[in-house]
Amino acid sequence: MRKLINDPDAVVADALRGVEAAHRGMLRVDHLHRLILRADAPRPGKVGLVSGGGSGHEPLHGGYVGAGMLDAACCGEIFTSPTPDQILAATTAVDAGAGVLHIVKNYTGDVLNFEMAAEFAAASGVAVETVLVADDVAVMDSLFTAGRRGVGGTVLVEKIAGAAAEQGRDLAAVAEVARRAASACRSMGLALSSCTVPAVGRPTFDLADGEFELGIGIHGEPGRERRPLVGARDLAHLLLDPILKDLDVTDAPVIALCNGMGGTPLLELYLMWGELSAALAASGVTVARTLVGNYITSLEMAGCSLTLLRADEELLDLYDAPVDTPALRWGCR
Amino acid sequence: MRKLINDPDAVVADALRGVEAAHRGMLRVDHLHRLILRADAPRPGKVGLVSGGGSGHEPLHGGYVGAGMLDAACCGEIFTSPTPDQILAATTAVDAGAGVLHIVKNYTGDVLNFEMAAEFAAASGVAVETVLVADDVAVMDSLFTAGRRGVGGTVLVEKIAGAAAEQGRDLAAVAEVARRAASACRSMGLALSSCTVPAVGRPTFDLADGEFELGIGIHGEPGRERRPLVGARDLAHLLLDPILKDLDVTDAPVIALCNGMGGTPLLELYLMWGELSAALAASGVTVARTLVGNYITSLEMAGCSLTLLRADEELLDLYDAPVDTPALRWGCR
Repeated sequence: MRKLINDPDAVVADALRGVEAAHRGMLRVDHLHRLILRADAPRPGKVGLVSGGGSGHEPLHGGYVGAGMLDAACCGEIFTSPTPDQILAATTAVDAGAGVLHIVKNYTGDVLNFEMAAEFAAASGVAVETVLVADDVAVMDSLFTAGRRGVGGTVLVEKIAGAAAEQGRDLAAVAEVARRAASACRSMGLALSSCTVPAVGRPTFDLADGEFELGIGIHGEPGRERRPLVGARDLAHLLLDPILKDLDVTDAPVIALCNGMGGTPLLELYLMWGELSAALAASGVTVARTLVGNYITSLEMAGCSLTLLRADEELLDLYDAPVDTPALRWGCR
Repeated sequence: MRKLINDPDAVVADALRGVEAAHRGMLRVDHLHRLILRADAPRPGKVGLVSGGGSGHEPLHGGYVGAGMLDAACCGEIFTSPTPDQILAATTAVDAGAGVLHIVKNYTGDVLNFEMAAEFAAASGVAVETVLVADDVAVMDSLFTAGRRGVGGTVLVEKIAGAAAEQGRDLAAVAEVARRAASACRSMGLALSSCTVPAVGRPTFDLADGEFELGIGIHGEPGRERRPLVGARDLAHLLLDPILKDLDVTDAPVIALCNGMGGTPLLELYLMWGELSAALAASGVTVARTLVGNYITSLEMAGCSLTLLRADEELLDLYDAPVDTPALRWGCR
């Protein structure tokens, strides 16, 4: 196992010390509950935004904590849901009386644990709304999931909801726009290699050199099929076509995320975006905004995913609003 | 070979189409000369900043083109110096009469080709100054290099020089502060795996699972030695100690870059930073600024490097100044 770690069972705790040391002033870390929190949370009058999930997808979610995005991220063990008490601690920590929105990727464990935490929080007087992200068109009812999996769309939902909360909208309004963004997202991914969970010590699956898996999940769970590797131009269509079959973007601009799974060089991600943007243009789709890079990863997995969000003027404005987090920063502070 | 590409010999040209599509408004691409240019270059009265080198180190250099940093990046073939005519075209394109600074990593091919381009530019009336970055303490006179190699310090030099140019300083002043920054940088890296150059199709070197190479170069050229892999805490000292032996930082704050080689998950980079920052604190070093992430890579190589820059108030101010590029963005526009 080729990893920069101390103890395979202490990876998340050890990494949180690095996050704390790197982002003092912007973030604080609750080591007991394994939370990454906005340094100035709770912000009076602002709806609190909490997300989280298994670790190993960095920068998701901790890299998106900061002004204009999340107030707290709950860090589960690698590829393992955070516990209800973690989520409850985060919810309580960021509530300033305006309530809290949970942004949850659709995996059975995450859904159950966020639900339980929301019930506990409600019982102690904190209003909680939940938005589920289930944007992966690859498969229905996969390993770990009933229904579609939540993947790259989560980044865009967190950005848009974060901007709405920062503007001072109330809980119902932030939840509404977050749900609208989530329902407007579709994603499709592929892998050229597996990743290795440190505590397991061997690759999650085997994939021969010269093969790829289409529709891969972000934990290495099975996709649609394995095929002999083809060129980037053909791969672009294999990602794009199932999305366009599912999401009508003939009459609306899209926000596009060309995402790396963690082990693929940025040079290749830009190359993929060259092919994807050409294919989008040929399909008559207008790309209004683009992100290219590693935004939701699977440890060192090689591969990429495409996410499209069917936008309107309000969603574009919220996407464009200032953000100041470790992994997304733009606009004025 | 597990790569998202079309033709192994067209990777750079294909990737530049993706860069162009992703960053319209911020950047433009000269496909003939393989240049990534600031969309609004040349800026009247501003010293032009040109860097470049072999591709495969993204986001270096193209990801650092934009307001507050580079005006142009020359993209060589993968791990191959850009040609003098590329560099000359970039120099001419960004000169607005105030002259041009070349920021050059110390590799023999890069040095010669930038030198030749500077001579041609001077002959046509463009004033050119050059700063060499040679921050790698691992080895002297390695493959491709006479003297020390230029590695992670380049990112910091480009940031600092870019801010000085943006302030309207003249060529001599920008060159002076860039040289001061370059001479204040030291770096040390390690690799857990090789990378594969697409046109070659096989790993540059073999490294057994459970082994690492200390002092690796960013093209996979040999470092100091191979050893059995140890834990992150010990690795942190193996990176830090040779730097501290070479750079006195007992009485000055440092800017630190904990950099990934491309194939190492962000979770592990934060874990390494946790160990490095603890080791720095134990050595009495004050860390004033921190970057953790993939800033100068070697395709999909697994591993990391540490760069320290001995700072003063002026260098910190220039580092903190606003920047708006694909890979580094902060402050107000």
